[in-house]
Amino acid sequence: MSTQAENERIDMRWDGWGDPARAHGLPGGVKLLLTAVLGRTPAPPPGPELADVTISTPPLPADDLAALAAAVGPEHVDAGHDARLLHAGGKSTPDLLRRRQAEQAAPGAVVRPGAEDDVAAVLEVAAQRGLAVVPFGGGTAVTGGLAPDPGAHRGVVSLDLRRLSGLVALDDVAHEATFHAGTTAPAAEAALAAHGFELGHFPQSFEFATLGGFAAMRSSGQNSAGYGRFDAMVTGLRVVTPTGTLDLGRAPGSAAGPDLLRWFLGSEGRFGVITQVRVRVHPTPEARLMDAWTFRDFAAGADGLRRVAQLGTGPTVIRLSDEEETAVSLAQVGNIGKALARGCSAVVLHEGPADLAAARREATTRVLREAGGRPAAGRLAESWDHGRFKAPYLRDALLGAGVFCETLETATTWSNLAALKAAVTAALADGFDREHARNRILCHISHVYPTGASLYFTVIAGLGADPLEPWERVKAGVNDAIMATGGTISHHHGVGADHAPWLEREIGATGLRMLRAVRAELDPAGIMNPGALLG
Amino acid sequence: MSTQAENERIDMRWDGWGDPARAHGLPGGVKLLLTAVLGRTPAPPPGPELADVTISTPPLPADDLAALAAAVGPEHVDAGHDARLLHAGGKSTPDLLRRRQAEQAAPGAVVRPGAEDDVAAVLEVAAQRGLAVVPFGGGTAVTGGLAPDPGAHRGVVSLDLRRLSGLVALDDVAHEATFHAGTTAPAAEAALAAHGFELGHFPQSFEFATLGGFAAMRSSGQNSAGYGRFDAMVTGLRVVTPTGTLDLGRAPGSAAGPDLLRWFLGSEGRFGVITQVRVRVHPTPEARLMDAWTFRDFAAGADGLRRVAQLGTGPTVIRLSDEEETAVSLAQVGNIGKALARGCSAVVLHEGPADLAAARREATTRVLREAGGRPAAGRLAESWDHGRFKAPYLRDALLGAGVFCETLETATTWSNLAALKAAVTAALADGFDREHARNRILCHISHVYPTGASLYFTVIAGLGADPLEPWERVKAGVNDAIMATGGTISHHHGVGADHAPWLEREIGATGLRMLRAVRAELDPAGIMNPGALLG
Repeated sequence: MSTQAENERIDMRWDGWGDPARAHGLPGGVKLLLTAVLGRTPAPPPGPELADVTISTPPLPADDLAALAAAVGPEHVDAGHDARLLHAGGKSTPDLLRRRQAEQAAPGAVVRPGAEDDVAAVLEVAAQRGLAVVPFGGGTAVTGGLAPDPGAHRGVVSLDLRRLSGLVALDDVAHEATFHAGTTAPAAEAALAAHGFELGHFPQSFEFATLGGFAAMRSSGQNSAGYGRFDAMVTGLRVVTPTGTLDLGRAPGSAAGPDLLRWFLGSEGRFGVITQVRVRVHPTPEARLMDAWTFRDFAAGADGLRRVAQLGTGPTVIRLSDEEETAVSLAQVGNIGKALARGCSAVVLHEGPADLAAARREATTRVLREAGGRPAAGRLAESWDHGRFKAPYLRDALLGAGVFCETLETATTWSNLAALKAAVTAALADGFDREHARNRILCHISHVYPTGASLYFTVIAGLGADPLEPWERVKAGVNDAIMATGGTISHHHGVGADHAPWLEREIGATGLRMLRAVRAELDPAGIMNPGALLG
Repeated sequence: MSTQAENERIDMRWDGWGDPARAHGLPGGVKLLLTAVLGRTPAPPPGPELADVTISTPPLPADDLAALAAAVGPEHVDAGHDARLLHAGGKSTPDLLRRRQAEQAAPGAVVRPGAEDDVAAVLEVAAQRGLAVVPFGGGTAVTGGLAPDPGAHRGVVSLDLRRLSGLVALDDVAHEATFHAGTTAPAAEAALAAHGFELGHFPQSFEFATLGGFAAMRSSGQNSAGYGRFDAMVTGLRVVTPTGTLDLGRAPGSAAGPDLLRWFLGSEGRFGVITQVRVRVHPTPEARLMDAWTFRDFAAGADGLRRVAQLGTGPTVIRLSDEEETAVSLAQVGNIGKALARGCSAVVLHEGPADLAAARREATTRVLREAGGRPAAGRLAESWDHGRFKAPYLRDALLGAGVFCETLETATTWSNLAALKAAVTAALADGFDREHARNRILCHISHVYPTGASLYFTVIAGLGADPLEPWERVKAGVNDAIMATGGTISHHHGVGADHAPWLEREIGATGLRMLRAVRAELDPAGIMNPGALLG
């Protein structure tokens, strides 16, 4: 199997999302719509150029760099200004707002291990010398888990896993593929496609995120109704901790005590570094049947999705936009009649061998019709399909135009879904009101389970020229509302630094003690990502 | 909701399986078959009556009993001879062989908490007084996890959870039901059936096992192809540990750090006591379509099952007997033509609303035909369905006739399945050879996953009048073979005391350190089930 490192990957914009060549301004129609909704939002002053940023934290001293160079080779240790700033955080809106500041914190050096042994060697150096280590995959984190937080240590090493890339092994009987953890999702799909297989994990971060990152953050993707959250795809992990290496996932099903593999799904680099990920794959789907539906309102649509999830009719994608999001989507699609504008739209995809995909679609169609759904113009689905990875580029354009834009997500049972949606919406609206910010709150169900669903919110607001602290206040109110209403603090973005203060309310004091006990056992020096998860 | 304790339950035979009223001798046909295969196996001398057994371990002293009585009420503390022996172990064949000895170890007292607070109070008393606590659900464990092992402590309390029984809450929108952990599977099904729902977890221990036990042991059932292992059914747990209570499972999907609920699936009473279990349920199936198939050989049948699992056509049950097991099953069914006797038989069940069940069956049928399967007489499936909980009763009859009988299970990927089956079979055959025991080794695939399957072995052997130690030698060889060939030490029976020596080879030294670290954090006095899991 190919173990060739995939080194040629494009660095994302240091101060925004994605391929710099694909950055764009705000489309005229969106601009008009925003002015109507939010009023005039004066564009903020442009942020500094990369070269003009002052880094507030020193680079690692020469003796640290020499020790790290001995571990991975001098050409893979970089304490240069640009490399450090390219690893200064993730891609949440607060991260991007921080990239506009004249002075910014950054790790003391970037280290790029080329093999699992290199990772172990770096952790040894870091533990000996008192340096924190922040694992860095695709850099797409949105909950602050890549912040260069040294904890109690002298400095921070950003451990960039890009050289740990490529397909290690493909088992075309068991439908399992093993990848180095730094493999990006597109590189993984390309490697699998060459053998007629697909992973089918398509979060919005797809173009840049890595498989190790998906595992560490418990990612969920747009096709997770059909292929499962990334949690459900992972069948094996190799993890290098400061005090030993784990090789987990011995069988497809086991009762050999607690499933330790699950401990590292959601581990957020806090206990060690995921170096290999084994995943369940499936043959490239023969058929891809995409449909759009409309429902009278969100409650009716949610009821339809619930029935589909509970009967298990087998859609690959099933998502429902609320009335607000539907109206905005339709405004963007631009040419669909007013008749739909008061309802809710859903997008449904069925995949598989042609006969099975058709049978699944037929079963779902029957259920959605019974729930009061009506088939809608295919353009709606095509438009979603076409734009599925574009939202983060649009966010850059919005921020550039002075419009604050951010997303957040939670999940709960079907019976609690309406209450949670109302509570989060109210907390957002109240928070923005307190900040005197006109706003728009959009929501969709992004993922369904037999027992419940996720709610994914997108907010746009006129939060002023410096939205960082106002948003922190709004978000804190939302997190409190989620906890008070029985939701989870994160359905698929993770805990990071941003949600860490709420984790105890999620898992309890005893749960937190379990996390800390394992941290103390595997990482007694406390070097692993000190700012993430446990705060 | 009903919270009524279900106290009226039948105690199993103290020295065998199940309802004493249903015990039976060996059917004539089976006796003839066995004589042909194993030769004459002289019946062992009958074991002692319950009243005649000498208990080798003392009852708890009066001050311990008084402290426990203060925790749960004096009427729920029992240090009597019979109660202690009824809690002296589980129902593995070695357990039953130990029940034939004149002198037996037993817990020092049996305590029956009536509420979660009682459980916490018992753990506090036990930690203060230096007593080990062995949680006891239905008593159906088969890997030694109920052995009254005091570890470093003065004595053992058997914590019988039967009073923690009944439905706590049913959410008929989210399709979730919460039960007290001591609820037996039949009691849970009866409570759900009254509301039109089913849990659908049918292991061979169904008639006596409890929901808390299923969770603690990571149970898998006969319908797990359709409804998932018990792991997959659990959406919430309450756990009382010696140092705090956990309420886990906040949302149907979450990325709020590692999923701690998973830690307690497979916890085997080692970290605390599961007091409540929330499970996913489904409407009582409208249709139940049962089919039998035959395949040329095991490889062809396994290939058919693999295709079904990987395509996700949706059977509720799908299991494949190997050539040996097929021949024995057919001999028991008695009246099916010789034509099938050289092949392998499979049983397949599809359930759900009538239209969906029919569509699923059609999809599975197409796949199995393509894989070379041929539909077989329905009697084969009916016979399996009819006898699905009878095997443990038959084992009692076999043991009474001097025929050693035991089961074991493992799992691996589809690509490694044939190698693992061959290795286990060879280890069994070699082991029995070394013991000069004529034997018969039967195997079936009991559970399928997209990436692999479980192998469930049943052995019968003429191991002599005292098979306990010979079998331990044979089993050790099998466990070594499983480890050497990449299987898991247990697919659904758990680790207990019997598999504990192999756990380090399954999860590694670092994995074992994680388990011990959490044990030390939650149970610093080390009172929880000292013999199980970690040995």
